[in-house]
Amino acid sequence: MAVFTHVGAEDIARFLENYGIGPLTSAKGIAEGVENSNYLVEAGGTRYILTLYEKRVDADDLPFFVAFINHLADAGNPVPRILPDANGSHVQRLMGRPACLIQYLPGISLSRPNGRQAYATGAALARLHNSAADFVGGPANPQGPAQWRFLTDLIGARLDDILPGLHASVARECDALERLWPHDLPTGVIHADLFPDNVLVLGDDVSGIIDFYFACRDTTAYDFAVTHSAWCFSPDGSTPLPTLAASLAKGYQSVRPLSTAEIAVMPVLARGAALRFLLTRAHDWLDTPENALVVKKDPIAYLRRLDAYRADTAGALFGFAAP
Amino acid sequence: MAVFTHVGAEDIARFLENYGIGPLTSAKGIAEGVENSNYLVEAGGTRYILTLYEKRVDADDLPFFVAFINHLADAGNPVPRILPDANGSHVQRLMGRPACLIQYLPGISLSRPNGRQAYATGAALARLHNSAADFVGGPANPQGPAQWRFLTDLIGARLDDILPGLHASVARECDALERLWPHDLPTGVIHADLFPDNVLVLGDDVSGIIDFYFACRDTTAYDFAVTHSAWCFSPDGSTPLPTLAASLAKGYQSVRPLSTAEIAVMPVLARGAALRFLLTRAHDWLDTPENALVVKKDPIAYLRRLDAYRADTAGALFGFAAP
Repeated sequence: MAVFTHVGAEDIARFLENYGIGPLTSAKGIAEGVENSNYLVEAGGTRYILTLYEKRVDADDLPFFVAFINHLADAGNPVPRILPDANGSHVQRLMGRPACLIQYLPGISLSRPNGRQAYATGAALARLHNSAADFVGGPANPQGPAQWRFLTDLIGARLDDILPGLHASVARECDALERLWPHDLPTGVIHADLFPDNVLVLGDDVSGIIDFYFACRDTTAYDFAVTHSAWCFSPDGSTPLPTLAASLAKGYQSVRPLSTAEIAVMPVLARGAALRFLLTRAHDWLDTPENALVVKKDPIAYLRRLDAYRADTAGALFGFAAP
Repeated sequence: MAVFTHVGAEDIARFLENYGIGPLTSAKGIAEGVENSNYLVEAGGTRYILTLYEKRVDADDLPFFVAFINHLADAGNPVPRILPDANGSHVQRLMGRPACLIQYLPGISLSRPNGRQAYATGAALARLHNSAADFVGGPANPQGPAQWRFLTDLIGARLDDILPGLHASVARECDALERLWPHDLPTGVIHADLFPDNVLVLGDDVSGIIDFYFACRDTTAYDFAVTHSAWCFSPDGSTPLPTLAASLAKGYQSVRPLSTAEIAVMPVLARGAALRFLLTRAHDWLDTPENALVVKKDPIAYLRRLDAYRADTAGALFGFAAP
């Protein structure tokens, strides 16, 4: 990750004048988040994140992100509030790009979370889901089942360049998930991308949940499945981490107990999560030039997860306590 | 610029244990400096810069950088002290790379400095030169006149791909500078790369001088010439900024008056500075692949400066007060 748009300190200082804060005493471009440009700035003794949205985030979606994140912040969730300028406007333009000034949250993002951090993250995700329940609106998931089919057809036989037979296998999985996908579970706005590096911790406590740019309206339990797929395997997908999974589940259920129906269908939801990341990674893998500014992530790591979730023994991966 | 080596927060936390500081409460990869990987970290309520040295900085040179920077810090210059670990060692290894923990300095780096900032920078550079006077050691400038000849021959006729006739013109300039270069002026360890983005300011005051990885032993007045070439033109080199130059000179001379000999030869020193950046930029321009992580800088911007310094009117570029 990198800074894609360079903003001079003078321009940042002028930008901050709209917010009535200053003077600017530090501005560092930071390598964080998806393909946006981020600056960690300090002004008037307080730190902020200045984000310029590059092409991956649609400016038309920003009002939703602002409303949802600030709704969560108002409800006491540790999310980075998007700040209004002196005119009450949350989205500005800087260097020709949409730009927001965002609350800085302390904490470090993890590579190898421990069980206590998984428990705290489960609980924080459940609180987020509870707070999202009374949020009105939000777009349908653009990375949902219809998109999996679309990407499978778009990438087509090139999937076999990653692994022979992958195209047919993925197409069959699309068929299966269309049959098995639940349509009667509770829905709400979900994070949809809660990888460990999108959680900030201080010690074992969650101090921040960040990077909401995949947030959308979808099945609430699917968000738990996405989080499980991101947290509860070794990074290459070869080794399930059931103890960590049990902590994640226990933390989540301490705040929002999953229903019997949600638990029963969790392996199917997790197959969807694994397929989603398998396909977007495969697409990026095949389409990203060498030497590009983004790190290419191995799609096979999610094929291994998909295989685990497809196995008869998949239920054991989640570590749900016996009823 | 970007982060080249990713270090997980857990590894940073373990690294900081050697320094007896903690706990780690924030770690952000920052896009700063030359081709190193830098993290802005906060631990025990204090901010630090963690630098991992990538291949451009030779690990064998680090003890010199440590000694010189800390010598300057001891003398009261606003430079980022390189901190010792609990065993008194300043250079560690992290992720297979040499790594240092460095004092964080507040301040912003400028794109468009004003006259007061140029004055303050001139004075800060002069204080640095005064403090360097009693520093023993330091390598000869690896980017000095011998290297200009070497790069001219190495790049050869490919210089004409940048601009027809450039190779012959640069070779003639090497000849001229070998004849004209002074060998009897005061020398010392110099910064050798004091671009505006290597100066941190708070308002109009210099709060930091950073990025010492070109520091070397050379003619002291040459450092002033390098700074002039970096500060006192529009970025594309087409427009001299004599008012800014007069402020830079006045600030410098308020602390360390330049001798008549140094002033007389300044256009020659500045031709050397312009040639140095012209050649290293040309080399990078021709050898850096598209899509690389570093920004390619236009060598022509320094050809324009070289032309200005070669003109009969070059003396006026510096804004030295009449004696």
